Amino acid sequence: MKFLTFACSPSSRLGVLIGPDHVLDLTETWPQHDDHMPPPAHVGDLIALGDTGLECARQLANEYGRDTTKLHSLSSLQVLAPIPRPTKNIFCIGRNYREHIIEGNRARGRPMDDFPPVIEVFTKPPTTVIGTLAPVPAHQHVTKQLDYEVELAIVIGTPGRDIPKERAMDHVFGYTIVNDVSARDLQKAHGQWFKGKALDGHCPMGPYVVHKSAIADPHALSIQLDVNGERRQDSSTKDLLFRIEDIIAQLSAGLTLESGDIIATGTPSGVGLGLEPPRFLKPGDVMEARIEGLGVLRNPIGE
Amino acid sequence: MKFLTFACSPSSRLGVLIGPDHVLDLTETWPQHDDHMPPPAHVGDLIALGDTGLECARQLANEYGRDTTKLHSLSSLQVLAPIPRPTKNIFCIGRNYREHIIEGNRARGRPMDDFPPVIEVFTKPPTTVIGTLAPVPAHQHVTKQLDYEVELAIVIGTPGRDIPKERAMDHVFGYTIVNDVSARDLQKAHGQWFKGKALDGHCPMGPYVVHKSAIADPHALSIQLDVNGERRQDSSTKDLLFRIEDIIAQLSAGLTLESGDIIATGTPSGVGLGLEPPRFLKPGDVMEARIEGLGVLRNPIGE
Repeated sequence: MKFLTFACSPSSRLGVLIGPDHVLDLTETWPQHDDHMPPPAHVGDLIALGDTGLECARQLANEYGRDTTKLHSLSSLQVLAPIPRPTKNIFCIGRNYREHIIEGNRARGRPMDDFPPVIEVFTKPPTTVIGTLAPVPAHQHVTKQLDYEVELAIVIGTPGRDIPKERAMDHVFGYTIVNDVSARDLQKAHGQWFKGKALDGHCPMGPYVVHKSAIADPHALSIQLDVNGERRQDSSTKDLLFRIEDIIAQLSAGLTLESGDIIATGTPSGVGLGLEPPRFLKPGDVMEARIEGLGVLRNPIGE
Repeated sequence: MKFLTFACSPSSRLGVLIGPDHVLDLTETWPQHDDHMPPPAHVGDLIALGDTGLECARQLANEYGRDTTKLHSLSSLQVLAPIPRPTKNIFCIGRNYREHIIEGNRARGRPMDDFPPVIEVFTKPPTTVIGTLAPVPAHQHVTKQLDYEVELAIVIGTPGRDIPKERAMDHVFGYTIVNDVSARDLQKAHGQWFKGKALDGHCPMGPYVVHKSAIADPHALSIQLDVNGERRQDSSTKDLLFRIEDIIAQLSAGLTLESGDIIATGTPSGVGLGLEPPRFLKPGDVMEARIEGLGVLRNPIGE
């Protein structure tokens, strides 16, 4: 199942994709209970309900999925980030595809074989999160080196700490696409990467959170990013240096992962910084991030 | 005014310190309004109410501050972190006191005069936050190099982006103490500092958020940390390399600071890593972090 969040004044609605281009409004059809709990209004709310929520969504999709009076056309909706306001920063894994590490080492004058022995982690605050089609602010007064990074993102379902590799996949709810938009000049100048990764609107996410049951092998997905229709990144998640189980095990050591936490797993080669000469983004450019089975995350660069 | 949050099943209460050791329960005395808004239950809720909330708190303190039937003795309460669950990671400024930078350069074999030209920023997730007297988990299966860092923390009141230095102080609500507990081995091994700064319970905070009106000059506060009664850190906020206005201006460039955001401003010299030989924390040790006018943040190391 592919879950999404869409705008509906005054807040948002949880939807599930039916076929390629219809959406069932789960918030509207969600059964009322005696406890007067409000129905889930976005994908984060659904995940917080655990297996009960997922089962309920499944039943609603079965019950109403063929009732055309209940379905919206996808193109009529304003799709938001599936978790529009995460309750903490997005966890991001740095340097996690071999070819991207090499291009980064080359661009920064480091030894080519400088591979990280363990995961490198930084974060992006909730104020970076935007949905598909929303413009990415260029912040031209702050950065002259705006860059893209398509990434497979893990969405945590079951909370846990000190999760062993063998049980890591039990804690995954599903997957989404993150574009880890980066201000390279700030990333370099400020020592730690945070500042260059944290500008408002610099974490496009979505369009869906796809439940893990719909992804046969998350380590065999093609992953691409186009700028103005030109392919810039083109790889497969099989090339992840640290796989999903590794990432969850290392990250959760002494650190509780919570339901709805988002972990971006790193980007493959082809970023603008790594091109010779480097090519950065400018207002009007359009990025399309694409991962097999997870849809297309499309964002123009705004002013 | 010194605001605090204390435990009261099933959640928490907002309090204001009256004299040295009494607390008025503001949640209980908060006026009911027609809009059925729940009263503030912690310091974060109060800050979100803006000037109206602050004025209301001031009036309640005036009205009930001498009514002994309304006051709790401070020692009878379980004081929590003033913002028990921040809505995003804590912003932390690295290397921001001259002597601490030198000790770090020495410990890591870097040139002694390697000073950052701009702020270095990393974060600690909400799962690190604990209150005074709560034990700091040692996570001995994950780290062998547990260290302390007393820091002045800014609490943001009025939201803003691209805040000029001249107006930075208008965005400050007040100040608190943060102990930026650090796992040095993880901090080093994982490249980016996040992982070594992010273990559960590794951000003791409090005991109060002191409104800025009570602090004549935040750049002239003595700042200390003792381990088992032995003074380890002893400095003044006058030695901050990047001052509060600088930090807010640099951090908010292209990045919206929100009400209740917390920015830890860096630690002075005297950390365990910088001693010769280095001395790390062990279960049973007691840390007391102290900043002039902000109280004492006391935490034992647990198992």
